[in-house]
Amino acid sequence: MADFSRRRLLGGGAAVLGAVGLGAAGAGVAVATRVSERMGANTVEPHGVHQAGIDTEPQAFATFVALDLRPDVDRAGVIGVMKVWAEDTRRLTQGVAALGDTEPELAVDPARLTVTVGYGSAAFDASASAAARPTWLRPLPSFDIDRLEDRWSGGDLLLQVCADDPVTVSHAVRTLTKSVRSRASVRWVQRGFRHAVGTRPDGLTMRNLMGQVDGTVNPQPATPDFDRQVWNAGEPAWLAGGTSLVLRRIRMELDTWDELDRPAKDLVMGRRQSDGAPLTGTAEHDDADFEMVDDHGIPVIPPESHVARARPRSADEQFLRRAYNYDDDGAGLLFAAYQGDVDRQFVPVQKRLAEHDALNTWTTPVGSAVFLIPPGYGPDGYPGDALLEN
Amino acid sequence: MADFSRRRLLGGGAAVLGAVGLGAAGAGVAVATRVSERMGANTVEPHGVHQAGIDTEPQAFATFVALDLRPDVDRAGVIGVMKVWAEDTRRLTQGVAALGDTEPELAVDPARLTVTVGYGSAAFDASASAAARPTWLRPLPSFDIDRLEDRWSGGDLLLQVCADDPVTVSHAVRTLTKSVRSRASVRWVQRGFRHAVGTRPDGLTMRNLMGQVDGTVNPQPATPDFDRQVWNAGEPAWLAGGTSLVLRRIRMELDTWDELDRPAKDLVMGRRQSDGAPLTGTAEHDDADFEMVDDHGIPVIPPESHVARARPRSADEQFLRRAYNYDDDGAGLLFAAYQGDVDRQFVPVQKRLAEHDALNTWTTPVGSAVFLIPPGYGPDGYPGDALLEN
Repeated sequence: MADFSRRRLLGGGAAVLGAVGLGAAGAGVAVATRVSERMGANTVEPHGVHQAGIDTEPQAFATFVALDLRPDVDRAGVIGVMKVWAEDTRRLTQGVAALGDTEPELAVDPARLTVTVGYGSAAFDASASAAARPTWLRPLPSFDIDRLEDRWSGGDLLLQVCADDPVTVSHAVRTLTKSVRSRASVRWVQRGFRHAVGTRPDGLTMRNLMGQVDGTVNPQPATPDFDRQVWNAGEPAWLAGGTSLVLRRIRMELDTWDELDRPAKDLVMGRRQSDGAPLTGTAEHDDADFEMVDDHGIPVIPPESHVARARPRSADEQFLRRAYNYDDDGAGLLFAAYQGDVDRQFVPVQKRLAEHDALNTWTTPVGSAVFLIPPGYGPDGYPGDALLEN
Repeated sequence: MADFSRRRLLGGGAAVLGAVGLGAAGAGVAVATRVSERMGANTVEPHGVHQAGIDTEPQAFATFVALDLRPDVDRAGVIGVMKVWAEDTRRLTQGVAALGDTEPELAVDPARLTVTVGYGSAAFDASASAAARPTWLRPLPSFDIDRLEDRWSGGDLLLQVCADDPVTVSHAVRTLTKSVRSRASVRWVQRGFRHAVGTRPDGLTMRNLMGQVDGTVNPQPATPDFDRQVWNAGEPAWLAGGTSLVLRRIRMELDTWDELDRPAKDLVMGRRQSDGAPLTGTAEHDDADFEMVDDHGIPVIPPESHVARARPRSADEQFLRRAYNYDDDGAGLLFAAYQGDVDRQFVPVQKRLAEHDALNTWTTPVGSAVFLIPPGYGPDGYPGDALLEN
């Protein structure tokens, strides 16, 4: 426990972290978060109470990679994978080539690179930690709307690699997967994008490929709401500061969606596509008024609209969305939701939407995966050290 | 011919182009090239002697789409496709939604969008223009190194859509393909990327996913070399100002490539990966000295190296490269070469490389397509009007 506490402490704040010598390679790496005039030089701190890439302002590009552990990998093997990933992450996020990096010239522009590591259910069995596995770490219940394909679902481990440059993401994904290939094989890769940096004025909510403003009702990092929704409070204790990722690949049926006229689309959503405002309001961030009726007594926001069905019925039913567009192999949304407890926060909302949501006619879930995101780690730690070294 | 000349003249220079009213929609579109403080607002002029997207400084993202004409499409049908694409291009490149655009909110950030249209061989048959088809408009000769797949090869028509924002590219591709779907179906889509704007200092040559500096020996736009290599001089006459595109999908065998050490890689290429300089020089743009030998009389640049084999044997054997990385379905390079005459300029170099090139062990052509790129067009014209309306 002494070691555990020291590690947590070291990981606990950027203020205590200075330049870190990286040993044999001799490269000094400043781990404090830096913002540069040149976008490519911007860095995000990899160490802390939480893993980076969740409360990080979303980067323009995200690649999600699921890996399966090879059958002979045991607890020591899982720890080995994690230590390699932590070391690669320390270096790559600061613009330093990984150890043994064969294309070090592709590592020099971190562009706010973050690497977020997740554990699938099977990683707990492999590491002889099944007793420590939260009950929510399992596939979601099956829903009638699902048309799930194995090639986009499941996985023993997750890498979420985000940056503002696609070459940086590509190189980091290759490096991280290559580093562990004796122990884990790639199960699927899903690539997502938002607007490139500089395309739009800062601070706008993203638009998805249906054209909708997507992600308006989201908690703001470093607020009590965010902390309550996203970070696990310690159930189980070792998970404090961690979270979960539910990744749903949601195909958009754009051809039929485009047959609707604009008023019909807005009624399906309960928001206006033009500015993202609820049908009862005038600006994107106005609260939706689900009680408002028109002159005929008809609700302005239809009860079967997406926003009406998605509306949380209790404070528990909230979580962080950090979605990305995809347009390979169909087009749609990589819907990434982060919450401290999947069963309590995510599942009730998804159940309600699956039972009825006007939008379901034009969206089809084709992939689904659930991962536990361990807490952050310090300069001597790795993702999951709180689980595997206590 | 009077109409032809007028159109050519109008297309001939941005200086004569002012604001253009777009009719029913009432949107005013300034077609002069604009550079804005916000990257997303930057525009590229769609009209001119040449189509845009070739002498345009390469944008960060490119999607190449091949389409096949439906069997019943005749000359009028081809003209119809081209007129729709020209109109969509006029609007989308200036940040104006296409006519009937169902997601107009995704059209507001052109981010230097260009749309470049190509004709495959079959488009000449469909448009009853076979007599006007250059002899070089056909599949490349087959090479022993080829492992071509139909899913990345051929096509009756080409759309090359480039911009600095991936959402803009995605929306433009959807709009352009949807606009013509009664007449043409998508055969394949290939997506490529370079570094995002702002990642690196301006003016650096791109790096490919092997980490190599890629594209050093390229003509500079608006120079005699560029004009001579890229723009067809009028063989046949209607093609003056047009060019051709050879698109090769070249898979990189990164796993085995990474087994080579750095000196071996540099000998395979004849250039240093670190800075792109030829092995006989000290800076990227130094001329390679193929005569230089070391103390043992051995050529410093191996005769079987990639640069030695690729070196033009005559002034004819030169062309413009405008390549993009890909990392879906394997990783590699979308090698895009533009030249006035495929047979005279491209084929001799490709033959020599196919016969022997040290790099061949680690690269595999898996797709190949040849398109004619018609000359540019004016505000009343369309790609190929010089062919179809003379």
